[in-house]
Amino acid sequence: MYLKYFYDSSLAQASYMVACQATGEAAVIDPARNIEDYLKIAREQGFHIVATVETHIHADFVSGVTELARRTGATIYHSLEGNENGGYEWDNALPVQGVRDQDIIRLGNVQLKALHTPGHTPEHMAYELIDGATADKPMGVFTGDFVFVGDVGRPDLLEKSVGVAGSAEEGARQMFASLQKFKKYADYVQIWPGHGAGSACGKALGAVPTSTVGYERLFNPAFQPTEEAAFVEFLLDGQPEPPAYFAKMKEVNKTGMTPLSKVPYSVEMQLAGDGVAELANDKQTIVIDTRSIQAFATGSIPKTINLPYPDMFAEWLGRLADYEKSIYLIAEPYQFAHLRKIMLSMGMDNLQGFFSTSVIDSASKLLTYETQSPSEVDKKRKHDHIQVVDVRYTDEWDEAHIPNAKHIPLPELAERTDELTPDKPVAVHCRSGKRSAIASSILINQGFDVINVKGGFINWENENLETTKA
Amino acid sequence: MYLKYFYDSSLAQASYMVACQATGEAAVIDPARNIEDYLKIAREQGFHIVATVETHIHADFVSGVTELARRTGATIYHSLEGNENGGYEWDNALPVQGVRDQDIIRLGNVQLKALHTPGHTPEHMAYELIDGATADKPMGVFTGDFVFVGDVGRPDLLEKSVGVAGSAEEGARQMFASLQKFKKYADYVQIWPGHGAGSACGKALGAVPTSTVGYERLFNPAFQPTEEAAFVEFLLDGQPEPPAYFAKMKEVNKTGMTPLSKVPYSVEMQLAGDGVAELANDKQTIVIDTRSIQAFATGSIPKTINLPYPDMFAEWLGRLADYEKSIYLIAEPYQFAHLRKIMLSMGMDNLQGFFSTSVIDSASKLLTYETQSPSEVDKKRKHDHIQVVDVRYTDEWDEAHIPNAKHIPLPELAERTDELTPDKPVAVHCRSGKRSAIASSILINQGFDVINVKGGFINWENENLETTKA
Amino acid sequence: MYLKYFYDSSLAQASYMVACQATGEAAVIDPARNIEDYLKIAREQGFHIVATVETHIHADFVSGVTELARRTGATIYHSLEGNENGGYEWDNALPVQGVRDQDIIRLGNVQLKALHTPGHTPEHMAYELIDGATADKPMGVFTGDFVFVGDVGRPDLLEKSVGVAGSAEEGARQMFASLQKFKKYADYVQIWPGHGAGSACGKALGAVPTSTVGYERLFNPAFQPTEEAAFVEFLLDGQPEPPAYFAKMKEVNKTGMTPLSKVPYSVEMQLAGDGVAELANDKQTIVIDTRSIQAFATGSIPKTINLPYPDMFAEWLGRLADYEKSIYLIAEPYQFAHLRKIMLSMGMDNLQGFFSTSVIDSASKLLTYETQSPSEVDKKRKHDHIQVVDVRYTDEWDEAHIPNAKHIPLPELAERTDELTPDKPVAVHCRSGKRSAIASSILINQGFDVINVKGGFINWENENLETTKA
Amino acid sequence: MYLKYFYDSSLAQASYMVACQATGEAAVIDPARNIEDYLKIAREQGFHIVATVETHIHADFVSGVTELARRTGATIYHSLEGNENGGYEWDNALPVQGVRDQDIIRLGNVQLKALHTPGHTPEHMAYELIDGATADKPMGVFTGDFVFVGDVGRPDLLEKSVGVAGSAEEGARQMFASLQKFKKYADYVQIWPGHGAGSACGKALGAVPTSTVGYERLFNPAFQPTEEAAFVEFLLDGQPEPPAYFAKMKEVNKTGMTPLSKVPYSVEMQLAGDGVAELANDKQTIVIDTRSIQAFATGSIPKTINLPYPDMFAEWLGRLADYEKSIYLIAEPYQFAHLRKIMLSMGMDNLQGFFSTSVIDSASKLLTYETQSPSEVDKKRKHDHIQVVDVRYTDEWDEAHIPNAKHIPLPELAERTDELTPDKPVAVHCRSGKRSAIASSILINQGFDVINVKGGFINWENENLETTKA
Repeated sequence: MYLKYFYDSSLAQASYMVACQATGEAAVIDPARNIEDYLKIAREQGFHIVATVETHIHADFVSGVTELARRTGATIYHSLEGNENGGYEWDNALPVQGVRDQDIIRLGNVQLKALHTPGHTPEHMAYELIDGATADKPMGVFTGDFVFVGDVGRPDLLEKSVGVAGSAEEGARQMFASLQKFKKYADYVQIWPGHGAGSACGKALGAVPTSTVGYERLFNPAFQPTEEAAFVEFLLDGQPEPPAYFAKMKEVNKTGMTPLSKVPYSVEMQLAGDGVAELANDKQTIVIDTRSIQAFATGSIPKTINLPYPDMFAEWLGRLADYEKSIYLIAEPYQFAHLRKIMLSMGMDNLQGFFSTSVIDSASKLLTYETQSPSEVDKKRKHDHIQVVDVRYTDEWDEAHIPNAKHIPLPELAERTDELTPDKPVAVHCRSGKRSAIASSILINQGFDVINVKGGFINWENENLETTKA
Repeated sequence: MYLKYFYDSSLAQASYMVACQATGEAAVIDPARNIEDYLKIAREQGFHIVATVETHIHADFVSGVTELARRTGATIYHSLEGNENGGYEWDNALPVQGVRDQDIIRLGNVQLKALHTPGHTPEHMAYELIDGATADKPMGVFTGDFVFVGDVGRPDLLEKSVGVAGSAEEGARQMFASLQKFKKYADYVQIWPGHGAGSACGKALGAVPTSTVGYERLFNPAFQPTEEAAFVEFLLDGQPEPPAYFAKMKEVNKTGMTPLSKVPYSVEMQLAGDGVAELANDKQTIVIDTRSIQAFATGSIPKTINLPYPDMFAEWLGRLADYEKSIYLIAEPYQFAHLRKIMLSMGMDNLQGFFSTSVIDSASKLLTYETQSPSEVDKKRKHDHIQVVDVRYTDEWDEAHIPNAKHIPLPELAERTDELTPDKPVAVHCRSGKRSAIASSILINQGFDVINVKGGFINWENENLETTKA
Repeated sequence: MYLKYFYDSSLAQASYMVACQATGEAAVIDPARNIEDYLKIAREQGFHIVATVETHIHADFVSGVTELARRTGATIYHSLEGNENGGYEWDNALPVQGVRDQDIIRLGNVQLKALHTPGHTPEHMAYELIDGATADKPMGVFTGDFVFVGDVGRPDLLEKSVGVAGSAEEGARQMFASLQKFKKYADYVQIWPGHGAGSACGKALGAVPTSTVGYERLFNPAFQPTEEAAFVEFLLDGQPEPPAYFAKMKEVNKTGMTPLSKVPYSVEMQLAGDGVAELANDKQTIVIDTRSIQAFATGSIPKTINLPYPDMFAEWLGRLADYEKSIYLIAEPYQFAHLRKIMLSMGMDNLQGFFSTSVIDSASKLLTYETQSPSEVDKKRKHDHIQVVDVRYTDEWDEAHIPNAKHIPLPELAERTDELTPDKPVAVHCRSGKRSAIASSILINQGFDVINVKGGFINWENENLETTKA
Repeated sequence: MYLKYFYDSSLAQASYMVACQATGEAAVIDPARNIEDYLKIAREQGFHIVATVETHIHADFVSGVTELARRTGATIYHSLEGNENGGYEWDNALPVQGVRDQDIIRLGNVQLKALHTPGHTPEHMAYELIDGATADKPMGVFTGDFVFVGDVGRPDLLEKSVGVAGSAEEGARQMFASLQKFKKYADYVQIWPGHGAGSACGKALGAVPTSTVGYERLFNPAFQPTEEAAFVEFLLDGQPEPPAYFAKMKEVNKTGMTPLSKVPYSVEMQLAGDGVAELANDKQTIVIDTRSIQAFATGSIPKTINLPYPDMFAEWLGRLADYEKSIYLIAEPYQFAHLRKIMLSMGMDNLQGFFSTSVIDSASKLLTYETQSPSEVDKKRKHDHIQVVDVRYTDEWDEAHIPNAKHIPLPELAERTDELTPDKPVAVHCRSGKRSAIASSILINQGFDVINVKGGFINWENENLETTKA
């Protein structure tokens, strides 16, 4: 038996190739849309990918099952449980095969046995992996978004991202039941999850690729509650805000997304700086500047938004997602290819093109903003020379905040600037100074005089300045 | 003044960037469709491309003027001479500017002065380059397909590729007149031509990038005839067969081709070998195997055609061009990007995808053919055990050929195999053994038992075997 | 806690980075000499590599601990058990720290606890990994060459590669004792081994990256014997021939190898083909042709050896290893970088340079050999027209062979050709036709007329030809 | 005949490959040390490089003739004129061939005919190129550093860089005589020079790759003086300061530099920021930070020098050259390869390694400096709150400068800071603000409080501030 782990660190997404070396048949579990790595390994190993297996309808990345099926002829295996046809609405031309609980997918001597594990989603399947050539018991389980290292899948996405009322609590109860089934596995059984640290599909995922049933039984907090009610309360508590793009992912993954062979290739453009400003000013267009916070602060083309790469790009593109407008990126040319990959993996086929960072120099007008320390800002605040805006999430604000600050979570900022006065500078802060950089880029483009609070609320507290606590 | 030479060796095509360093304004003369190199230099030099200048409607590559205009905002300068609107039918949205004989395009201190030079085509313009900052006389002339190093543009393409009867001779006479105008330039004036050695836009282009009026006056054969009639005879004699794709190029370059941002990106596919065979068998599909002649001969997937890369790929793709069918290439993965570039530069947006050469191993059935020396073949020929097919061009055949051989020029072979008998092996030859390799791949796919004659007619003559001479 | 798996498929070698995200301190366990990947991840994650941990003195690759220490300032942690200073003889300038059984290496909240596990080597350490932030029990064990997925480390290398008489059996007994200690771990504990399938450090390694104590307890054959004697017999039986380069590795890994910053960079050379032939003819030089078997068979430069890349290159370079002569490789230019990496990872700093495969065409004389089917060869054998040479290992020969064949294992072939007669062609075979291709390249260079038996002994048996069985 | 132009824009250096297609023999004229591009073209064209021709002992880059000779077997053709053995002191093992005025180097039908053209250096040769297959007169001349487009080679380097007293004027007279010889060429003869715009081998080189005798006769200022005395005065006037590294180049190019196959490969290092600071503090070490001026100003590791890439790196590395100390570079990882190439082309084999720019973040202490407008600086100057330092060259200073400013040319700054007072901030300026950024990095490391004058003297004059004029 052959097994290989793949990991896309931009989206914290794991996928797996398993193959029978005797027959050369291979399967990919939960493939991403950029399938080059699978093809490369299959080439090198002399495998033929005959199956691609999806644990559930993903919310956080474009599934690669249709891309793989179209380009290799592999059959798509998908859940039939939980909903009518598992919730899928495949194109008839695709070679699909529905799977029910306990069904087995065979690759030569290798077996993948389905286990219906609703909770994260109603149709969710885990797959036991059995190496029939040398063993009669499972070596491990591909758990998808059911069990993670140190966490379990969140049950509230359907409710929060798709709007199915009441589904969060129902999902949590299903998750409890699924976990009881799962706990019956022997301690030694490995866990191969669908995500790692940084994913928004859970709240506390570990940065370790694999675990075991026995280890999680001991140390995974979600395995500790023995009563359903306690578990449900535990699970629904403290789930992070789902990014806006999740809704789109749930939609496209029902049917499979546009084949990459039909997606035009985004190219470099080279308008002079003022041409870029004109483009950025178009209501149907978004121009994102991926340079560092510092570089953007000292000069940016009007109407461009700052999402620094690699630190904040993927996450905040997902949170501020827009699939309708045309998107252009300003970046270093050597970064274009990776940026395109990230956008395709989030289904942002509306990426129109790139500009080199050198366009900044050619613009006749650049915007800037200041970065100042908390104590400088506090002094101005006390003299009422500025207004303070806090762009953190509600739970962060609730815990403690700057007195008299205005609270507008970053994803809502662009739409709510009418709540601010144009007459005073805006001092904007978040927890560490990163989200407030994005906020600063939004605010200067609406004409505000902006100060980014250096080091954010962490620094504010470190300097022992006044706060309002919950 | 800044001047840079660009050269695409796949199509033997030259282009030029000229700029005024004082203002940063740049122009590209006769750009190719893959404009990355121009954008890179402009970025590095801090130039803004404001103009893109076309000498004439190109027959041998997709002009990049529309691509450049769309991605940089540059104005397209084109000829208004020779035909209504110079023969162009631009999309109204494009920023175009017509140019007449003696018009001047200005880039800061730099001037490009148009000179109407019909002959290769009726609308053809050459452009004098004057460095206004330091000189009042032209430093050189961008001659397009008018004057090459050691040659002049052929006048017969419109007749042969587009079917305008009588235009070859008329073009030759125009060329004579244009040359008389050109000869008035001072000896020191440089010549920056549109093509180098290997181009099918002339018959004897040199492999030297630049020349001068004085040098060509002395040594260019086309500058020697002083009478029109002698010149016309000289010029029309011995022009090579124009590749089939020229007709398509003339058509797309009138209007400008699809923007690259609308062309889907061709991807690797990984069907098992028999899947490739099935695809290759589809009438709407062409699968080209780009491996070496030797590798193909020892095992190829049925119905695939052999166009070895890099030696024969671009030229023969152009000669056997098909813009209607879907094209797939079998190649080494590291070659995919360059192969795609070549196909885009020839307008073959019908490239659907790539297969790695490793697919060959997975096919259940492979075709092969033999390679034998001329003397072995001659022995069989004398015993009437084989039929000999000569796939050279007519002028080569006329000069000398193997007695009783059948003459079918390679571009016609696929359609004329009914003239061969299926009962005897086919010994196929060309001049050196390269074209006959393509022919062999065509013939084995029609069920013939094939022998490729090693070293071709050159070897045949070297071995002093019998020939029929003109 | 952060954990990442690294795998070098050329040498089937695994290494691991573990870090405490709270402090940014990272360690690399059993690093390879090419440390770029570790540096890249550390950069991306914002880690500082402060420790590099070696499980034992490696026999199959150049350890990267000294390279990492020199380039990051990390401390080298090494065993003090088994031998004086664990057998190491470090340069005094290196920051080293000896480790005894049960010692703990701390990285912020993360702990690596040493477990002395002799058997593969006397000094061998395994390291438990404890995530102190969330658990008080080990999550897994870095087992080095102690326990693999489906196998355990071989105990016979010191005897076979370094010549320590009697150490194989002693090692096997130590391995038995170490395994008893290891079996005390809970079932859920993960196993992160030093090698995967294809490594010569064991006999049956699985192609799965990780396992667990419980799973190996059930299915690993080496875990089954409960008596020492039976275990020793089991373990010593059927160990593959260790490659020749292992001896060199044991030597250099005691002290650490030359820093890469002192290794000259191998460059492309471009002698004409006959210059290459002259170089290959030099007794102090080896020229390896990495092209496919088929390409080499149809034409090779005299005195060059065929080690096809990627299939056979790394393994047979190791088996035919020579650290004294200058080595040149003939390869495709895009492969140069990877070939250099492989050679550096095996300590072959005697790589002098590369030739492009295009040099073949320029040689005035090329050698060739024939490939024929077993039945053709058998016919000739029966008529005594040829001599048959079997280049398989002794155990393969003992099981069954072609009657009257001569047995010379491939690693001995170059030195034993005087046992063959120059008067008859040599038909050479192995199991599948791969090793015999290398053998063919050796034999044609000693002037023999060579036939490679297509498909080897497998094919011979498939065609039901006569064999002599044990 | 085949001719190809190569251009290294980092050093503004041109080289040429010429070949006879009939025989495949090729020569490279004035090759750079990084010979990959020549090898690649030779491979693609099927050429064998049999000759490498040097016009003179280069002062501004490491000649690649020995590298080419060692790696291809090519013969080195060098001048025997001007000095004993032309001034060369070749290693006996090299295949060299001396050339005298009017000697001819033959490559099949192609001829290179030597013309002794002293002036830039005593041994200088130009080479006429004659395409014997089609012409009996030269097509052009490889002029090396004799005639450039718009300029001629400077005659003062031996005096200024090597210290040969009186050689500048003698060189100028020789140059006059050489030009008279050169003017006899026909107007149409092409000029293929050794350098383009930006080279310090002349004072006014054009940014056009090629010219002609006739054009230069008309428009090249150096062709205008008809009297020797006037020419000498013209030529010696206004030559730029030669960079310090020229002296080293003259030395190494006499013998040929270390083969690249003996130069260790510089690798990435990953010390924490304070480790870098410690290294930078070492007297035997230089750490260069290649980030932008802006990024460096807002935070740099103590004792690191700022040479921004690509704008200022190569030029100022050459001007501040140090061949004795170990050099480390801080850069983006994707830039490492190009930076190494640049340093090798300048003979800086003392490049020890690279740090990623991410090390900056990990340093516990960072230095910063301010950037202020001329008017702000002028205000402080008038109140005597600062000292003003002008780091321009003497000729720039002489023309006009800020009243009471201190003049220290940048190359002398590091050694002359004891002329400044530590008690007042230093406002440093140059012409445009670029050189003063380097100066700022030098000054902050010597403990000064620094203000970089924004936009330099250009801006100062634009703001109509007070100046002292010559």
